[in-house]
Amino acid sequence: MPLSLTGVTTMFEGSFQLNSISGSKSQALNTIFASTLSCLYLAIQVLPQYSTASTLPLSELKEPQHDISSPNLNAAFAELKVILGASNISTVQAELDHRSNSSWSSHQEKLHEKPHMIVFPSSTKDVAAIMQICHRRRIPVTAYSGGTSVEGQYTPTRGGICIDFARMDKIVTLHEKDLDVVVQPAVGWEFLNEELAKSNLFFPPDPGPGAQIGGMVGTGCSGTNAYRYGTMREWVLSLTIVLADGTVIKTRQRPRKSSAGYDLTKLFIGSEGTLGLVTEAVLKVIPLPQTTSVAVASFPSIRDAADCVSEIVGKGVPVAAIEILDDVQMHCINKSGMTDRMWPEAPTLFFKFAGTSIQVLEQIDIVKKSASNARNKSFEFAKSQQEQDDLWSARKAALWSVMALRKDESDHVWTGDVAVPISRLPDIMEETKQDLSKSGLLATIVGHVGDGNFHAVILYNDGQRELANGIVHRMVKRAIEMEGTVTGEHGVGLVKRDYLPYELGEATVDAMRQLKHALDPLCLLNCDKVVRMSNPKAGEVKAW
Amino acid sequence: MPLSLTGVTTMFEGSFQLNSISGSKSQALNTIFASTLSCLYLAIQVLPQYSTASTLPLSELKEPQHDISSPNLNAAFAELKVILGASNISTVQAELDHRSNSSWSSHQEKLHEKPHMIVFPSSTKDVAAIMQICHRRRIPVTAYSGGTSVEGQYTPTRGGICIDFARMDKIVTLHEKDLDVVVQPAVGWEFLNEELAKSNLFFPPDPGPGAQIGGMVGTGCSGTNAYRYGTMREWVLSLTIVLADGTVIKTRQRPRKSSAGYDLTKLFIGSEGTLGLVTEAVLKVIPLPQTTSVAVASFPSIRDAADCVSEIVGKGVPVAAIEILDDVQMHCINKSGMTDRMWPEAPTLFFKFAGTSIQVLEQIDIVKKSASNARNKSFEFAKSQQEQDDLWSARKAALWSVMALRKDESDHVWTGDVAVPISRLPDIMEETKQDLSKSGLLATIVGHVGDGNFHAVILYNDGQRELANGIVHRMVKRAIEMEGTVTGEHGVGLVKRDYLPYELGEATVDAMRQLKHALDPLCLLNCDKVVRMSNPKAGEVKAW
Repeated sequence: MPLSLTGVTTMFEGSFQLNSISGSKSQALNTIFASTLSCLYLAIQVLPQYSTASTLPLSELKEPQHDISSPNLNAAFAELKVILGASNISTVQAELDHRSNSSWSSHQEKLHEKPHMIVFPSSTKDVAAIMQICHRRRIPVTAYSGGTSVEGQYTPTRGGICIDFARMDKIVTLHEKDLDVVVQPAVGWEFLNEELAKSNLFFPPDPGPGAQIGGMVGTGCSGTNAYRYGTMREWVLSLTIVLADGTVIKTRQRPRKSSAGYDLTKLFIGSEGTLGLVTEAVLKVIPLPQTTSVAVASFPSIRDAADCVSEIVGKGVPVAAIEILDDVQMHCINKSGMTDRMWPEAPTLFFKFAGTSIQVLEQIDIVKKSASNARNKSFEFAKSQQEQDDLWSARKAALWSVMALRKDESDHVWTGDVAVPISRLPDIMEETKQDLSKSGLLATIVGHVGDGNFHAVILYNDGQRELANGIVHRMVKRAIEMEGTVTGEHGVGLVKRDYLPYELGEATVDAMRQLKHALDPLCLLNCDKVVRMSNPKAGEVKAW
Repeated sequence: MPLSLTGVTTMFEGSFQLNSISGSKSQALNTIFASTLSCLYLAIQVLPQYSTASTLPLSELKEPQHDISSPNLNAAFAELKVILGASNISTVQAELDHRSNSSWSSHQEKLHEKPHMIVFPSSTKDVAAIMQICHRRRIPVTAYSGGTSVEGQYTPTRGGICIDFARMDKIVTLHEKDLDVVVQPAVGWEFLNEELAKSNLFFPPDPGPGAQIGGMVGTGCSGTNAYRYGTMREWVLSLTIVLADGTVIKTRQRPRKSSAGYDLTKLFIGSEGTLGLVTEAVLKVIPLPQTTSVAVASFPSIRDAADCVSEIVGKGVPVAAIEILDDVQMHCINKSGMTDRMWPEAPTLFFKFAGTSIQVLEQIDIVKKSASNARNKSFEFAKSQQEQDDLWSARKAALWSVMALRKDESDHVWTGDVAVPISRLPDIMEETKQDLSKSGLLATIVGHVGDGNFHAVILYNDGQRELANGIVHRMVKRAIEMEGTVTGEHGVGLVKRDYLPYELGEATVDAMRQLKHALDPLCLLNCDKVVRMSNPKAGEVKAW
């Protein structure tokens, strides 16, 4: 229970019934009292409510007070110019728009949700200086790197400053013998892997094309390789972080493992830029597998495909990836003409294999048998790199093949993901497919099926937004009811935020808010994301 | 910069120079003023210093105020009796002693470092009720499960209540198809694996014998399997936690992966009972490997052995474990007679293999070649389960063989661990070995060499404590200078706490303190562990 300071003030006011004093002296005195009390009251208002509680419910949080007035922003601009140079600050409208939202985001951006300016730091020191200014001036800040997130993660709900990390795009040091690499936040995972390949090394997390390390840390991303290699959480050794007040911390040096103190590295992974800004990361890498291959198998039904996966997972076969695309998705790929061949329009599993050639052949053999046990209709595996690329091309084209079917600007694609315990995956995919069919919208299912994680990819136009929203809403509800999560890899942003209490319970979300408030008491960093920092407006939260 | 409220008081005092009023009225008035001010001053003292900073330096923290007075503890006892029954509370001296420290701990326990009572809850609800009482009464709390930690983790520096989880030792539910298991905190990892084996399943983390899930979460433990399978961090899906004020949170449901909100699960892993109490855990499990084997190879020098490891790690061969024992350790094993055979007294690598029989044979072949490239003196691999057990028996006996050489109660064993980037492991092991030789103490090196993590196992008597302490101190310093960590798997407890700022920087430790203070403002949970909550006494911290 917070100590109510307002109560203290009231008590004092009660004590000052100085009726026995009269005349000018007592008046002067009363004036002093009054001014003292108002001083005190002011001081108390500035103070947060003190609590000995472990969590911070929304009801006990004061509305964040930012200052985005023109004079304050202008003064900040002048200060930032000294640090960064005028050419590294932008207020060009098109650039501001670009850092507000994207056409593939499921968040519906509001008109005011734009940064007032964009700054381009080149070092940790720059970022620390920027945050010192923003902290002193109470200007909210949003971080931006690849811009590929889909749940409104970088939409600046309260305006302020966008920190675009574009200039911090260097691979700093590769430690080949230690199997780690030091990188800046705007290094893309594809570029990183091209560079690593020159040293026969590999960094497994493979989220959407264009994603960069800063955002990948923020989202706690994964991708097709997560089944075998784990998510971003398993591949970051250390982070350099600028905190909300400009303090710079490094979460670790470079040991492969450590039990030294709280795992700050992992606290920042998945925190979506709300707890601190990543300015450098040490990533684990591994030797490139000697051999890889790909296989594709189609099945009469989603459930047959799921049976196949269940058998493979249950045997602990270390395949590098197991992906599912449903019949509608395969139809879209054919229709879009994005691959060089036509595919059976049936639920299809895509497998990647990695290891020595003996291991790969053995795995293909096991997978082939499991597919046959699950009544597969077709099975192909690649005998050359070209065949690997051809077979995997359909998986790669999945999202874009749906995007390609958009007719005009009013058409959008909503890519929502959830994850459930593996055994419940067939249930949720089937129920969601029925829901999709009923909706009349073109919608596909694409899943990282080895992790119990899948995406619904929904094509909708402006008039159908509520229809799409309803599908995702019911899918999320189903996932929670099946002991799953509202997002397996896309993160919370603004879109999944109000579902968190249903998944985790209010107290858990209140614990998250307590941590946010501890590290960022002024709520400067990506305020409103992940956990609510203000009460919702009427009608803002969909009924459960 | 914190708002200095003391300053506000002083200002008020300045305003009240009411010299123009005289007589009894002014006296009465002054009395009212004085009492008002003292009221205000009191209120201000109760308040913490308010800060908009992201970190909490020790200099800004108020000394934790606990109440371990007899009346308060007696009143707590009466309340706890109602909840738990008298038979589940103990104040028997021998039991209190047993929960204070152990003979294998490197912490030198002080006389007052004992719990005042031990409570044995049977459910999350019990633990929440205990914490509500302790929170209200400001009684410090220490959690206890297997008692195998070595750095003073469960030594109650401020007395209070020990929560022994012994009664919460159930495997709650095994979800075979989802590959997860729900357990209570006092389930031992060995027992768990016996039970899982009945379903052909396996839980990889393998810390010291006797360790239990609660403590394994607390320490963020690992063991010999970490090279292949990762540490405790990679094997916990979700935790049920009782926070310092008795709030119960669950960090996740049971999806295999999630990006939904801050990764609280991983924040609690490695927090050594300072942030919350684990009352239930959902653990990942995997199918037992079809085939396993063991190989043992000895080398002319530590550096040759390290070269062998480097080649294997660099090739990404997924061996299940790579362990090193130095010549002195092999000598101790021979001398103790703890295995059925004699061993070459040379630096020796122990390998575990797991997978299909084809994979295992292939791995043995690669390892054999790497050992030969590194000038090995011997190479043996197991052709039967019996041979596996025989070969692995030496690795298993390592610590105990040194313990067996203790002559009397005044002899102790100090097992200190550090971890460094893999390429630096030969350097630090060699330098530490030289240091050990010079000391004249019997001391061995045992390492999880695939992770860059090793232990010095030092036999010393009461009079040699400072000698042993010095060895560990220099080893830690070396690890930090090589970009490593002060502990790879044993945790911080009390012994490594003052090294943390050297490894991570003061600001990082201050960020950890901020998190501790946010979740446990009264510092009730295992206060003084991991991060300092009080200034050190003179001479308490060893010079760097």
